[in-house]
Amino acid sequence: MDHTIIQNAKELSVRIIRQAGLIAKEKFDNFDVLRSKDNYGDVITEVDLLAEEIIVEQIRMAFPSHQIHSEEAGMIGNENDWLWLIDPLDGTNNFAIGLPVFTTSITLLYRREPVLGVIYEPLTDRLFVSVLGEGTTCNNRPVHIKSNSNLFKGNIGWIQGHKVQNDSKAVQLRQYIDVRFKRMMRLWAPTLQWCMLAKGDIDGIVLYNSEGDDLYSGILMVKEAGGIVIDFEGNPFRGMNEEPYLIACHPDHKQELLKIVREGLK
Amino acid sequence: MDHTIIQNAKELSVRIIRQAGLIAKEKFDNFDVLRSKDNYGDVITEVDLLAEEIIVEQIRMAFPSHQIHSEEAGMIGNENDWLWLIDPLDGTNNFAIGLPVFTTSITLLYRREPVLGVIYEPLTDRLFVSVLGEGTTCNNRPVHIKSNSNLFKGNIGWIQGHKVQNDSKAVQLRQYIDVRFKRMMRLWAPTLQWCMLAKGDIDGIVLYNSEGDDLYSGILMVKEAGGIVIDFEGNPFRGMNEEPYLIACHPDHKQELLKIVREGLK
Repeated sequence: MDHTIIQNAKELSVRIIRQAGLIAKEKFDNFDVLRSKDNYGDVITEVDLLAEEIIVEQIRMAFPSHQIHSEEAGMIGNENDWLWLIDPLDGTNNFAIGLPVFTTSITLLYRREPVLGVIYEPLTDRLFVSVLGEGTTCNNRPVHIKSNSNLFKGNIGWIQGHKVQNDSKAVQLRQYIDVRFKRMMRLWAPTLQWCMLAKGDIDGIVLYNSEGDDLYSGILMVKEAGGIVIDFEGNPFRGMNEEPYLIACHPDHKQELLKIVREGLK
Repeated sequence: MDHTIIQNAKELSVRIIRQAGLIAKEKFDNFDVLRSKDNYGDVITEVDLLAEEIIVEQIRMAFPSHQIHSEEAGMIGNENDWLWLIDPLDGTNNFAIGLPVFTTSITLLYRREPVLGVIYEPLTDRLFVSVLGEGTTCNNRPVHIKSNSNLFKGNIGWIQGHKVQNDSKAVQLRQYIDVRFKRMMRLWAPTLQWCMLAKGDIDGIVLYNSEGDDLYSGILMVKEAGGIVIDFEGNPFRGMNEEPYLIACHPDHKQELLKIVREGLK
């Protein structure tokens, strides 16, 4: 693995993610909804496409041999050790209803392991960057996951794939978590929840079968901020998985959260 | 009822709510949490107190005979036909975890009927104003509640008092609504949900026993934007109620939402 590539990729990502964010910021409350994305009532805005174009084009110019997968455009280029995942607008449905909860996310993977994650929140101008082995920063300051002395008065982020929205096990677990903690936070913008966990603003994440271009930057953020990411059996999560079921938290909370998830799935 | 008072109150409110918002915007991501507010894990930040001071002081100077109730300071002044309700920072818990979902809210009531509502979202710079009989505006443009051809693919805002968080009937209804609609949105910043409904961004609100200084500006916003606000029996909601149970929506959706709520409470 060539570390110069990662450093160059980081510099490029920081630059282009801000360009994409500027478009989102300018268009907020003033955009066209293009079309419904699928049967789940999701939408694509012109911003998704404009932001995607900026990001994808500049990555292709800088790293022509790398493969890129982007939320709307799909897979670009031939198979390669280096794979970029782009979510040009995570939280499109929030964006479309004027809720200022959305980000842009760029991930770089080397042989299916995330090595770089960059997430930008344009409205608050917060830039999260994580490099494998180098920690996580928010606007250049290191951030760390926190331990909560009373986890049940805390805030657990819930992330769920649209396709399992009313899957009975998903509903059962979601509703169990909802009553066990002071707050279960469901933002419909997963990348932001991963950043909030990495930054110590929330206490855990339970993710139920939700994979996509919005997943791996956040996982790296949390791990590099001192958190753990495990599956429902308690095994460390690595690489990629098309149907992930995950718990993420401070290491102190591993057993408590595993127990809650097991109870909730019973 | 003296309409000059309402007009003067509106001009004053618009001015001072922007001042309060500026403080919140500057302190976002950079503030002190002062203390836990109660046993429900809520917090007060220095911003609540600073914003409150600015607003309350200027109202007292402009309308010395009026009574004021503010979230943190409580009741100020003697009983009067004119009562102001101030929520200096609705969504304090969001503010405290860096989630950009919070507002400031000012309501003026005459003989316990809301006649003026002003809500400001500092991070997005959106100002919502509603005057009894004169409609609702967002940044000076009139807004209107919308009708949704497929309500179940819509977005229903859930608002609930902290004190009934795990009340069994509240949980039952909340979880029923959660699976009946594409999205149940729980923002923990009620005033913003009322504004989103008035603006046509969400499709309804169900409110379960949640009263406070954050309630009446939003109700006026929705009614003046063409919406209805009814209790769980279907009767129009007027005046004030310490334990409100409410449905708010476009008139087209009255029967559908009443039915859902009744089913959910069975």
